[in-house]
Amino acid sequence: MRVFVPFDASDPKTRLDPVLGTDERLSFARAMLTDVLAAIEGAGGDPTVVATEPIDIQVPVTVDERPLQDAVNDRLAETVVPTAVVMSDLPLVTPETIDRLFSVDGAVVLAPGRSGGTNAFVTRHPDFRVDYHDASIRDHRAIAAAIEVDPVEVDSYRLGTDIDEPADLAEVLLHGEGGAAEWLRERGFEIAIADGRVGVER
Amino acid sequence: MRVFVPFDASDPKTRLDPVLGTDERLSFARAMLTDVLAAIEGAGGDPTVVATEPIDIQVPVTVDERPLQDAVNDRLAETVVPTAVVMSDLPLVTPETIDRLFSVDGAVVLAPGRSGGTNAFVTRHPDFRVDYHDASIRDHRAIAAAIEVDPVEVDSYRLGTDIDEPADLAEVLLHGEGGAAEWLRERGFEIAIADGRVGVER
Repeated sequence: MRVFVPFDASDPKTRLDPVLGTDERLSFARAMLTDVLAAIEGAGGDPTVVATEPIDIQVPVTVDERPLQDAVNDRLAETVVPTAVVMSDLPLVTPETIDRLFSVDGAVVLAPGRSGGTNAFVTRHPDFRVDYHDASIRDHRAIAAAIEVDPVEVDSYRLGTDIDEPADLAEVLLHGEGGAAEWLRERGFEIAIADGRVGVER
Repeated sequence: MRVFVPFDASDPKTRLDPVLGTDERLSFARAMLTDVLAAIEGAGGDPTVVATEPIDIQVPVTVDERPLQDAVNDRLAETVVPTAVVMSDLPLVTPETIDRLFSVDGAVVLAPGRSGGTNAFVTRHPDFRVDYHDASIRDHRAIAAAIEVDPVEVDSYRLGTDIDEPADLAEVLLHGEGGAAEWLRERGFEIAIADGRVGVER
């Protein structure tokens, strides 16, 4: 299956700024992207990175400087279904996770993310489009309904866990099995408990 | 399968205090418990509530005033495996979710929750015990290893989403299909977007 993986190659993961420098944010974002691409390829998918500027990586890259939503919708318009889109900040995904996503039967298959996000989807309907503003899962249910599709949702913690904020790094250390977890460990990050909450320290 | 569902009937969900009064917290916690019990029964499970004080509910209740960990470990010690434990604050679970948990083959099957929690598990080994302090998923992996079990993890967003804080209520409104979501809607809660973050307002 053709899989588009959007990637902000310019100034990624700004909400990790409190714990990572600018160069580190880019390096960590690349490590997460590499994990996601490996999972997709391990599940037999055919990934293309849709990046905001050229990057050197071992899969095809399309450069599109526009906002995420426009870049994704243009790819959907010009690609024969089935097509999948998987976010690049999901370092918990494994080949088995992506295989589950691909294997669910449905014209539109959505993988919800925390706080109303849509972290991945498969469309087998040529008219499905995305709207990534605010609680996008609601919009994607409505967009599917508008083309008379009853969307199916895949129930996955690994697909649902996108890494945006410092507290999210604990998820990578607790559950990641790839390069992003290794990246954090090599730079001295470890799980720390403060006031009963699980976080990280360096 | 015998399923124990621990429930704080005394002062539940204190972190929801900013948005719910004391009586409301108990009422909402009961609505979540009811959803969880319905999902367990819908999957063919045989639930027993382990409550800190007597409650009136249509399934067997055992009262145990001790901390969660002691109450659960005593039940595990006195019950013939297989046994499951499912937390009561998982209003996104459906019968299908619980059926997945029950169906995974493994001597110890863990369902990770956010921030290192263990929101549910099945044990088919008589010596598995719990440790709910801090990042419990790490402890449960270690406890399983100590009895020479390689634990299996079930990858479920619905099992992984426990409701502790006001922001978590958005998950109930976005994904809940039972009484807890209805409870919130009836009391005027709805999704609200502030500073690009998804939350709730009343």
